[in-house]
Amino acid sequence: MSEECLKFIYTRRSIRDYSEKEISEEDLQKILRAGFQAPTAANEQPWHFIVVRRRDLLEKIAESHPYAKMLKKASAAIIVCADPKRSRFPYRLWDQDCSAATQNILLAARILGIGSVWIGIYPREDFDRDVKEILGIPTEIVVFSIISLGYPKSESEFREAEDRFKEDRIHRDGW
Amino acid sequence: MSEECLKFIYTRRSIRDYSEKEISEEDLQKILRAGFQAPTAANEQPWHFIVVRRRDLLEKIAESHPYAKMLKKASAAIIVCADPKRSRFPYRLWDQDCSAATQNILLAARILGIGSVWIGIYPREDFDRDVKEILGIPTEIVVFSIISLGYPKSESEFREAEDRFKEDRIHRDGW
Repeated sequence: MSEECLKFIYTRRSIRDYSEKEISEEDLQKILRAGFQAPTAANEQPWHFIVVRRRDLLEKIAESHPYAKMLKKASAAIIVCADPKRSRFPYRLWDQDCSAATQNILLAARILGIGSVWIGIYPREDFDRDVKEILGIPTEIVVFSIISLGYPKSESEFREAEDRFKEDRIHRDGW
Repeated sequence: MSEECLKFIYTRRSIRDYSEKEISEEDLQKILRAGFQAPTAANEQPWHFIVVRRRDLLEKIAESHPYAKMLKKASAAIIVCADPKRSRFPYRLWDQDCSAATQNILLAARILGIGSVWIGIYPREDFDRDVKEILGIPTEIVVFSIISLGYPKSESEFREAEDRFKEDRIHRDGW
Protein backbone atom coordinates (compact mmCIF):
# COMPACT_ATOMS: atom_id res chain seq x y z
CA MET A 1 0.00 0.00 0.00
CA SER A 2 2.90 2.39 0.61
CA GLU A 3 3.59 2.38 -3.15
CA GLU A 4 0.07 3.59 -3.92
CA CYS A 5 0.33 6.36 -1.34
CA LEU A 6 3.75 7.48 -2.59
CA LYS A 7 2.24 7.65 -6.06
CA PHE A 8 -0.11 10.37 -4.84
CA ILE A 9 2.91 12.46 -3.86
CA TYR A 10 4.60 11.74 -7.20
CA THR A 11 1.56 12.59 -9.33
CA ARG A 12 0.37 15.74 -7.61
CA ARG A 13 0.47 18.57 -10.11
CA SER A 14 -1.28 21.90 -10.65
CA ILE A 15 -4.75 21.37 -12.14
CA ARG A 16 -6.25 24.61 -13.47
CA ASP A 17 -9.40 23.44 -15.21
CA TYR A 18 -12.26 21.82 -13.35
CA SER A 19 -15.46 19.90 -13.99
CA GLU A 20 -18.74 21.13 -12.52
CA LYS A 21 -18.77 18.46 -9.81
CA GLU A 22 -18.84 20.05 -6.36
CA ILE A 23 -16.53 19.02 -3.54
CA SER A 24 -18.48 17.65 -0.56
CA GLU A 25 -18.24 19.35 2.82
CA GLU A 26 -16.95 16.04 4.17
CA ASP A 27 -14.03 16.02 1.76
CA LEU A 28 -13.27 19.68 2.48
CA GLN A 29 -13.09 18.80 6.15
CA LYS A 30 -10.59 15.99 5.40
CA ILE A 31 -8.48 18.40 3.39
CA LEU A 32 -8.54 21.04 6.15
CA ARG A 33 -7.54 18.39 8.68
CA ALA A 34 -4.43 17.71 6.60
CA GLY A 35 -3.54 21.40 6.77
CA PHE A 36 -3.82 21.42 10.55
CA GLN A 37 -1.59 18.34 10.86
CA ALA A 38 1.43 19.99 9.24
CA PRO A 39 4.46 20.42 11.48
CA THR A 40 5.19 23.90 12.85
CA ALA A 41 8.19 25.38 14.60
CA ALA A 42 7.78 24.83 18.36
CA ASN A 43 4.29 23.48 17.57
CA GLU A 44 2.94 27.03 17.34
CA GLN A 45 0.33 26.30 14.64
CA PRO A 46 0.21 30.03 13.82
CA TRP A 47 -2.53 29.80 11.20
CA HIS A 48 -6.12 30.35 10.14
CA PHE A 49 -7.90 28.78 7.17
CA ILE A 50 -10.65 30.51 5.23
CA VAL A 51 -12.90 28.30 3.11
CA VAL A 52 -14.45 30.18 0.22
CA ARG A 53 -17.34 28.63 -1.70
CA ARG A 54 -19.43 31.67 -2.59
CA ARG A 55 -19.22 32.09 -6.34
CA ASP A 56 -19.15 35.91 -6.23
CA LEU A 57 -16.19 35.89 -3.85
CA LEU A 58 -14.25 33.34 -5.91
CA GLU A 59 -14.83 35.53 -8.97
CA LYS A 60 -13.71 38.68 -7.17
CA ILE A 61 -10.47 37.05 -6.04
CA ALA A 62 -9.90 35.69 -9.56
CA GLU A 63 -10.29 39.21 -10.94
CA SER A 64 -7.92 40.72 -8.42
CA HIS A 65 -4.94 38.40 -8.91
CA PRO A 66 -2.99 37.84 -12.15
CA TYR A 67 -2.55 34.08 -11.59
CA ALA A 68 -5.86 33.13 -9.99
CA LYS A 69 -8.15 32.91 -13.01
CA MET A 70 -8.80 29.21 -12.33
CA LEU A 71 -10.82 30.21 -9.24
CA LYS A 72 -13.70 31.13 -11.54
CA LYS A 73 -14.31 27.43 -12.15
CA ALA A 74 -13.11 26.12 -8.78
CA SER A 75 -15.55 24.38 -6.46
CA ALA A 76 -13.83 25.93 -3.45
CA ALA A 77 -10.72 27.71 -2.27
CA ILE A 78 -8.83 27.46 0.98
CA ILE A 79 -6.91 30.54 2.04
CA VAL A 80 -4.02 29.91 4.40
CA CYS A 81 -3.37 32.88 6.67
CA ALA A 82 -0.66 33.44 9.24
CA ASP A 83 -1.08 35.15 12.58
CA PRO A 84 2.47 36.38 13.31
CA LYS A 85 1.47 37.24 16.90
CA ARG A 86 1.22 33.51 17.58
CA SER A 87 4.93 33.08 16.89
CA ARG A 88 7.43 33.74 19.63
CA PHE A 89 10.57 33.47 17.48
CA PRO A 90 12.68 36.58 16.93
CA TYR A 91 12.91 35.62 13.22
CA ARG A 92 10.23 34.56 10.76
CA LEU A 93 9.27 30.88 10.70
CA TRP A 94 5.49 31.10 10.22
CA ASP A 95 5.97 31.23 6.43
CA GLN A 96 7.58 27.78 6.56
CA ASP A 97 4.73 26.52 8.76
CA CYS A 98 2.15 27.86 6.30
CA SER A 99 4.06 26.30 3.38
CA ALA A 100 3.91 22.89 5.04
CA ALA A 101 0.17 23.31 5.65
CA THR A 102 -0.36 24.37 2.03
CA GLN A 103 1.55 21.33 0.77
CA ASN A 104 -0.47 19.00 3.03
CA ILE A 105 -3.67 20.50 1.63
CA LEU A 106 -2.51 19.93 -1.97
CA LEU A 107 -1.65 16.31 -1.20
CA ALA A 108 -4.88 15.55 0.66
CA ALA A 109 -6.79 16.94 -2.31
CA ARG A 110 -4.76 14.76 -4.69
CA ILE A 111 -5.49 11.68 -2.57
CA LEU A 112 -9.22 12.46 -2.86
CA GLY A 113 -8.95 12.88 -6.64
CA ILE A 114 -9.34 16.65 -6.38
CA GLY A 115 -7.17 18.99 -8.43
CA SER A 116 -5.50 22.04 -6.92
CA VAL A 117 -3.17 24.97 -7.49
CA TRP A 118 -0.94 26.71 -4.93
CA ILE A 119 -1.52 30.41 -5.61
CA GLY A 120 1.21 32.43 -3.94
CA ILE A 121 0.26 35.56 -2.02
CA TYR A 122 2.99 36.20 0.53
CA PRO A 123 5.33 38.18 0.34
CA ARG A 124 3.44 40.32 -2.21
CA GLU A 125 1.82 43.15 -0.23
CA ASP A 126 -0.44 44.15 -3.12
CA PHE A 127 -1.90 40.63 -3.39
CA ASP A 128 -2.32 40.50 0.40
CA ARG A 129 -4.20 43.82 0.44
CA ASP A 130 -6.62 42.79 -2.31
CA VAL A 131 -7.57 39.47 -0.67
CA LYS A 132 -7.95 41.15 2.71
CA GLU A 133 -10.32 43.71 1.27
CA ILE A 134 -12.52 41.11 -0.44
CA LEU A 135 -12.77 38.85 2.62
CA GLY A 136 -12.61 41.36 5.48
CA ILE A 137 -9.41 39.93 6.95
CA PRO A 138 -7.92 41.90 9.89
CA THR A 139 -4.80 43.92 9.12
CA GLU A 140 -2.60 42.06 11.64
CA ILE A 141 -3.14 38.79 9.74
CA VAL A 142 -0.96 37.85 6.74
CA VAL A 143 -2.55 36.19 3.72
CA PHE A 144 -0.05 33.47 2.85
CA SER A 145 -1.52 31.37 0.01
CA ILE A 146 -4.72 30.45 -1.77
CA ILE A 147 -5.41 26.88 -2.79
CA SER A 148 -7.81 26.49 -5.68
CA LEU A 149 -9.79 23.21 -5.52
CA GLY A 150 -11.92 21.37 -8.05
CA TYR A 151 -12.32 18.02 -9.75
CA PRO A 152 -10.24 17.64 -12.90
CA LYS A 153 -12.20 17.00 -16.08
CA SER A 154 -10.53 13.60 -16.22
CA GLU A 155 -8.68 11.57 -13.58
CA SER A 156 -6.01 10.92 -16.22
CA GLU A 157 -4.80 14.51 -15.87
CA PHE A 158 -2.87 13.50 -12.78
CA ARG A 159 -0.96 10.92 -14.80
CA GLU A 160 0.67 13.67 -16.81
CA ALA A 161 2.70 14.80 -13.80
CA GLU A 162 6.24 15.66 -14.85
CA ASP A 163 9.11 13.54 -13.47
CA ARG A 164 11.34 16.14 -11.80
CA PHE A 165 13.95 13.78 -10.37
CA LYS A 166 17.46 15.10 -11.08
CA GLU A 167 20.39 12.92 -10.14
CA ASP A 168 22.83 15.86 -10.44
CA ARG A 169 21.08 17.73 -7.64
CA ILE A 170 21.82 14.93 -5.17
CA HIS A 171 25.06 15.03 -3.20
CA ARG A 172 26.44 12.37 -0.90
CA ASP A 173 28.10 12.98 2.48
CA GLY A 174 29.12 16.48 1.46
CA TRP A 175 28.74 18.80 -1.48
CA MET B 1 -7.56 3.41 -0.15
CA SER B 2 -7.66 7.19 0.06
CA GLU B 3 -8.51 6.90 3.77
CA GLU B 4 -5.32 4.91 4.44
CA CYS B 5 -3.22 7.44 2.56
CA LEU B 6 -4.81 10.40 4.35
CA LYS B 7 -4.01 8.64 7.60
CA PHE B 8 -0.31 8.93 6.79
CA ILE B 9 -0.71 12.72 6.59
CA TYR B 10 -2.69 12.77 9.84
CA THR B 11 -0.25 10.60 11.80
CA ARG B 12 3.05 12.11 10.72
CA ARG B 13 4.82 13.46 13.76
CA SER B 14 8.39 14.18 14.82
CA ILE B 15 10.17 10.98 15.82
CA ARG B 16 13.43 11.66 17.65
CA ASP B 17 14.52 8.20 18.80
CA TYR B 18 15.42 5.46 16.35
CA SER B 19 16.09 1.75 16.24
CA GLU B 20 19.34 0.43 14.77
CA LYS B 21 17.66 -0.71 11.54
CA GLU B 22 19.21 1.00 8.55
CA ILE B 23 17.19 2.67 5.80
CA SER B 24 17.76 1.01 2.42
CA GLU B 25 19.18 3.00 -0.49
CA GLU B 26 16.02 2.13 -2.40
CA ASP B 27 13.81 3.73 0.25
CA LEU B 28 16.06 6.78 0.42
CA GLN B 29 15.64 7.16 -3.32
CA LYS B 30 11.86 7.02 -2.97
CA ILE B 31 12.01 9.71 -0.27
CA LEU B 32 14.26 11.94 -2.39
CA ARG B 33 11.88 11.54 -5.33
CA ALA B 34 9.09 12.93 -3.14
CA GLY B 35 11.24 15.99 -2.42
CA PHE B 36 11.80 16.61 -6.13
CA GLN B 37 8.06 16.35 -6.86
CA ALA B 38 7.10 19.28 -4.64
CA PRO B 39 5.62 22.28 -6.42
CA THR B 40 7.82 25.33 -6.93
CA ALA B 41 7.06 28.89 -8.02
CA ALA B 42 7.29 29.04 -11.83
CA ASN B 43 8.56 25.43 -11.67
CA GLU B 44 12.06 26.68 -10.84
CA GLN B 45 13.02 23.70 -8.64
CA PRO B 46 15.75 25.83 -7.03
CA TRP B 47 17.17 23.10 -4.81
CA HIS B 48 19.87 20.56 -4.01
CA PHE B 49 19.62 17.60 -1.65
CA ILE B 50 22.56 16.27 0.35
CA VAL B 51 22.24 12.73 1.71
CA VAL B 52 24.38 12.16 4.77
CA ARG B 53 24.97 8.63 6.02
CA ARG B 54 28.52 8.85 7.36
CA ARG B 55 28.33 8.46 11.11
CA ASP B 56 31.12 10.98 11.83
CA LEU B 57 29.34 13.67 9.79
CA LEU B 58 25.96 13.01 11.43
CA GLU B 59 27.66 13.32 14.82
CA LYS B 60 29.38 16.56 13.88
CA ILE B 61 26.13 18.14 12.74
CA ALA B 62 24.41 16.92 15.91
CA GLU B 63 27.13 18.59 17.98
CA SER B 64 26.91 21.86 16.09
CA HIS B 65 23.14 22.46 16.38
CA PRO B 66 21.12 22.83 19.59
CA TYR B 67 18.11 20.87 18.26
CA ALA B 68 19.80 18.16 16.19
CA LYS B 69 20.86 15.68 18.84
CA MET B 70 18.64 12.97 17.30
CA LEU B 71 21.03 12.80 14.33
CA LYS B 72 23.42 10.76 16.50
CA LYS B 73 21.05 7.81 16.21
CA ALA B 74 19.62 8.60 12.76
CA SER B 75 20.18 6.19 9.90
CA ALA B 76 20.48 9.09 7.46
CA ALA B 77 19.82 12.78 7.02
CA ILE B 78 18.68 14.73 3.98
CA ILE B 79 19.76 18.34 3.82
CA VAL B 80 17.59 20.58 1.69
CA CYS B 81 19.57 23.45 0.17
CA ALA B 82 18.42 26.38 -1.93
CA ASP B 83 20.28 27.89 -4.84
CA PRO B 84 18.86 31.45 -4.93
CA LYS B 85 20.52 32.04 -8.32
CA ARG B 86 17.98 29.62 -9.81
CA SER B 87 15.12 31.92 -8.89
CA ARG B 88 14.19 34.79 -11.15
CA PHE B 89 11.69 36.44 -8.80
CA PRO B 90 12.52 39.88 -7.39
CA TYR B 91 11.29 38.63 -4.00
CA ARG B 92 12.06 35.44 -2.11
CA LEU B 93 10.01 32.35 -2.92
CA TRP B 94 12.65 29.62 -2.77
CA ASP B 95 12.07 29.22 0.97
CA GLN B 96 8.45 28.23 0.25
CA ASP B 97 9.66 25.79 -2.43
CA CYS B 98 12.12 24.22 -0.01
CA SER B 99 9.42 24.00 2.68
CA ALA B 100 7.17 22.06 0.31
CA ALA B 101 10.05 19.70 -0.55
CA THR B 102 10.83 19.21 3.14
CA GLN B 103 7.19 18.39 3.88
CA ASN B 104 7.05 15.90 0.99
CA ILE B 105 10.16 14.19 2.36
CA LEU B 106 8.63 13.90 5.85
CA LEU B 107 5.45 12.39 4.39
CA ALA B 108 7.23 9.92 2.11
CA ALA B 109 9.25 8.76 5.11
CA ARG B 110 6.05 8.34 7.14
CA ILE B 111 4.49 6.29 4.34
CA LEU B 112 7.53 3.99 4.43
CA GLY B 113 7.29 3.62 8.22
CA ILE B 114 10.35 5.82 8.74
CA GLY B 115 10.41 8.47 11.46
CA SER B 116 11.69 11.98 10.82
CA VAL B 117 12.23 15.44 12.23
CA TRP B 118 12.26 18.78 10.36
CA ILE B 119 15.30 20.55 11.76
CA GLY B 120 15.12 24.24 10.86
CA ILE B 121 18.24 25.95 9.58
CA TYR B 122 17.14 28.95 7.49
CA PRO B 123 17.01 31.88 8.35
CA ARG B 124 19.60 31.30 11.11
CA GLU B 125 22.95 32.36 9.65
CA ASP B 126 24.93 30.72 12.44
CA PHE B 127 23.28 27.33 11.79
CA ASP B 128 23.86 27.76 8.06
CA ARG B 129 27.54 28.52 8.54
CA ASP B 130 28.15 25.47 10.75
CA VAL B 131 26.50 22.99 8.35
CA LYS B 132 28.33 24.54 5.39
CA GLU B 133 31.65 24.12 7.12
CA ILE B 134 31.05 20.45 7.99
CA LEU B 135 29.85 19.49 4.51
CA GLY B 136 31.87 21.85 2.30
CA ILE B 137 28.81 23.60 0.87
CA PRO B 138 29.53 26.61 -1.41
CA THR B 139 28.86 30.03 0.08
CA GLU B 140 26.27 31.01 -2.56
CA ILE B 141 24.04 28.10 -1.48
CA VAL B 142 21.60 28.44 1.43
CA VAL B 143 21.15 25.55 3.85
CA PHE B 144 17.40 25.45 4.34
CA SER B 145 16.56 22.42 6.51
CA ILE B 146 17.85 19.08 7.72
CA ILE B 147 15.59 16.05 7.86
CA SER B 148 16.64 13.41 10.35
CA LEU B 149 15.55 9.88 9.29
CA GLY B 150 15.39 6.57 11.14
CA TYR B 151 13.03 3.76 12.02
CA PRO B 152 11.05 4.37 15.21
CA LYS B 153 11.57 1.81 17.96
CA SER B 154 7.93 0.85 17.52
CA GLU B 155 5.44 1.48 14.71
CA SER B 156 2.93 2.45 17.40
CA GLU B 157 4.79 5.72 17.96
CA PHE B 158 3.05 7.17 14.92
CA ARG B 159 -0.31 6.50 16.51
CA GLU B 160 0.42 9.01 19.23
CA ALA B 161 0.18 11.89 16.75
CA GLU B 162 -1.67 14.81 18.30
CA ASP B 163 -5.01 15.88 16.77
CA ARG B 164 -4.42 19.55 15.93
CA PHE B 165 -7.77 20.26 14.26
CA LYS B 166 -9.22 23.52 15.59
CA GLU B 167 -12.70 24.49 14.49
CA ASP B 168 -12.20 28.10 15.66
CA ARG B 169 -9.38 28.62 13.16
CA ILE B 170 -11.67 27.90 10.23
CA HIS B 171 -13.58 30.79 8.66
CA ARG B 172 -16.27 30.61 5.97
CA ASP B 173 -16.58 32.95 2.98
CA GLY B 174 -14.78 35.73 4.81
CA TRP B 175 -13.12 36.28 8.17
